Amino acid sequence: MVKTNGKKLLELSDCEAVYTSCLYQLRYLTGIEPENGLAIVDKDGTTLYTDMRYMEAAEKLLKGTDVTPMLYKQEDVLKRLTAYNRVGISFEQTTHSEYLALEKAGIKLVDVDKAFEQAMIVKNEWELSCIQRACEIAEDAFSLLLPEIKEGMTESEIAALLEYKMRMLGAQGLAFETIVAFGAHAAVPHHETGLTKLCFGDEILIDFGCRINGYCSDITRTFLFGDDGKHEEFKKAYQAVLTAHNLVKEQLRSGMNGKEGDGIAREYLKSQGYGELFTHSLGHGIGLNVHESPFVTPTARGESCILTDGMVFSDEPGVYKAGEYGIRIEDTVTLKDGKVKSFMGRTQRELLIL
Amino acid sequence: MVKTNGKKLLELSDCEAVYTSCLYQLRYLTGIEPENGLAIVDKDGTTLYTDMRYMEAAEKLLKGTDVTPMLYKQEDVLKRLTAYNRVGISFEQTTHSEYLALEKAGIKLVDVDKAFEQAMIVKNEWELSCIQRACEIAEDAFSLLLPEIKEGMTESEIAALLEYKMRMLGAQGLAFETIVAFGAHAAVPHHETGLTKLCFGDEILIDFGCRINGYCSDITRTFLFGDDGKHEEFKKAYQAVLTAHNLVKEQLRSGMNGKEGDGIAREYLKSQGYGELFTHSLGHGIGLNVHESPFVTPTARGESCILTDGMVFSDEPGVYKAGEYGIRIEDTVTLKDGKVKSFMGRTQRELLIL
Repeated sequence: MVKTNGKKLLELSDCEAVYTSCLYQLRYLTGIEPENGLAIVDKDGTTLYTDMRYMEAAEKLLKGTDVTPMLYKQEDVLKRLTAYNRVGISFEQTTHSEYLALEKAGIKLVDVDKAFEQAMIVKNEWELSCIQRACEIAEDAFSLLLPEIKEGMTESEIAALLEYKMRMLGAQGLAFETIVAFGAHAAVPHHETGLTKLCFGDEILIDFGCRINGYCSDITRTFLFGDDGKHEEFKKAYQAVLTAHNLVKEQLRSGMNGKEGDGIAREYLKSQGYGELFTHSLGHGIGLNVHESPFVTPTARGESCILTDGMVFSDEPGVYKAGEYGIRIEDTVTLKDGKVKSFMGRTQRELLIL
Repeated sequence: MVKTNGKKLLELSDCEAVYTSCLYQLRYLTGIEPENGLAIVDKDGTTLYTDMRYMEAAEKLLKGTDVTPMLYKQEDVLKRLTAYNRVGISFEQTTHSEYLALEKAGIKLVDVDKAFEQAMIVKNEWELSCIQRACEIAEDAFSLLLPEIKEGMTESEIAALLEYKMRMLGAQGLAFETIVAFGAHAAVPHHETGLTKLCFGDEILIDFGCRINGYCSDITRTFLFGDDGKHEEFKKAYQAVLTAHNLVKEQLRSGMNGKEGDGIAREYLKSQGYGELFTHSLGHGIGLNVHESPFVTPTARGESCILTDGMVFSDEPGVYKAGEYGIRIEDTVTLKDGKVKSFMGRTQRELLIL
């Protein structure tokens, strides 16, 4: 059964009711995200307004939850909202035109971005199980992909094949556009997967993930397609990134802030001479969005994020040498009993040479 | 080379400058849509603000266009915007929090939703060629899929295979989530593709599309997986839908409004006794969004849309009998020299029995 979170959000919002039309917030509150859907949460539960096309499916899926599906009529929704003294909406996820329409109807609006962030940052068991499954599918697809990688395949072909395998294993969509980078392309952290062909000796970096019930996985593996003997510097850097990745798993603890978490990997890479080449943050939160709170970064934002049990984020140190190579090793992890627990364990992190 | 549309938009906007951070609007104005991008258009051209990660790629892609990539600094952008007397933003595509931040900086904002709609509704030759290619890939993938459809495959497996084939043929993403519906599932126009297994004699409805340079294709084909002799009513309805689909191609003309266009199919289906079973509009505009203007519908909105040369929309009549069958035949089409021209012609519309 889908898990709904209206009650949790309402408690954090300090409002009589919360309203949203944002897809991921609908998913969070009702477990589903029908096109053109709206939700209102109040002390009596959550109402999902949708159109005829989705009613039957919604009724079936929401049986036994605190969510009641209803046919959407604009006047009903506006009238209902005007009766509350404080209606929370997410200013970051509501368009200005929608805001104006609600305001014009005389609805008393307050911003609940913070409440959504606070509610969504700590995952419940059901959310963790969705992320776990999305991680398993990603790793299993990767394992099935490896023996099919052949010289001459393009980055796009490998991405297509990997995505196909995730789909066949039960993924309900991609978490984000798959990145496949050969050779020096891997030095560009957000390389656009293209038509470059794979050659013997190339390094391959793949950053990918899928969704289960809207919840994402996020994983990166870097490996060699054969060893042409020209990868000594790459191999040295790989060991450094792997050690940084593992140190985070060993040393990061609940109660640390995001900057401290990031610092575990950053200090180590600095000590090995790679400080300048670790050009991004250690990690970002993962949930219904592939980038969300908490932020495990060396900035003030990271400093203000206290990492606690039930949060889910990436452990992804990287080293990038422009024009030469790029290395990133990424697991999706959570904090449990104060310590890091990875959702991944079906694929190797030690350097793989195909 | 990518095609940019800043000048066209600015002329329609009645503003000194237009600002956007919306992905499809960025794509429209600059030809690309980097994460965290912003664009400002003024009489001197378009500036794309992005971060270090995307600069190199942006510089390469935008050479020879009227778009200049620049490193994003919030204070620079705000300062620049305050110097204009009228800055256009799309109220429907700007979040309320972004609106507040711009307003707080003293920027004089006006709504340019209408200008974006007006600019984007008529496609130029380059846009038409992207849509053409997206349509060819969709049809070719469908042709490659047909011989691989086997009894016992699930809806999800067929969707995964079709998407894989589109990707391998060069698609740069999906236009929307592929719908595969077996049997009575086809009676639900927005059926959620699931784990139902294909049986001999089932009807199959597939609604899908892909993207080239952001531009979408949208196609639906309905066919039989073998003929178990129980499809007489289905076959009769199929002929009616096919005739309606073809009548639109023959009779719809530039200068008609959306309601008149819709009426061609609707009147015919009504005359054949299917009026009540055609439960949606004939068509919707297709471009960087898979649903956009013009709206070829029997409503006031359709009546106010005058269809003209260069517009792109779907011709998709359908007949749905709950619990029994659903039929939809859809091409992506455009208007050229006053008449309908389909982007599709590589797959048959006459009833296919596998």
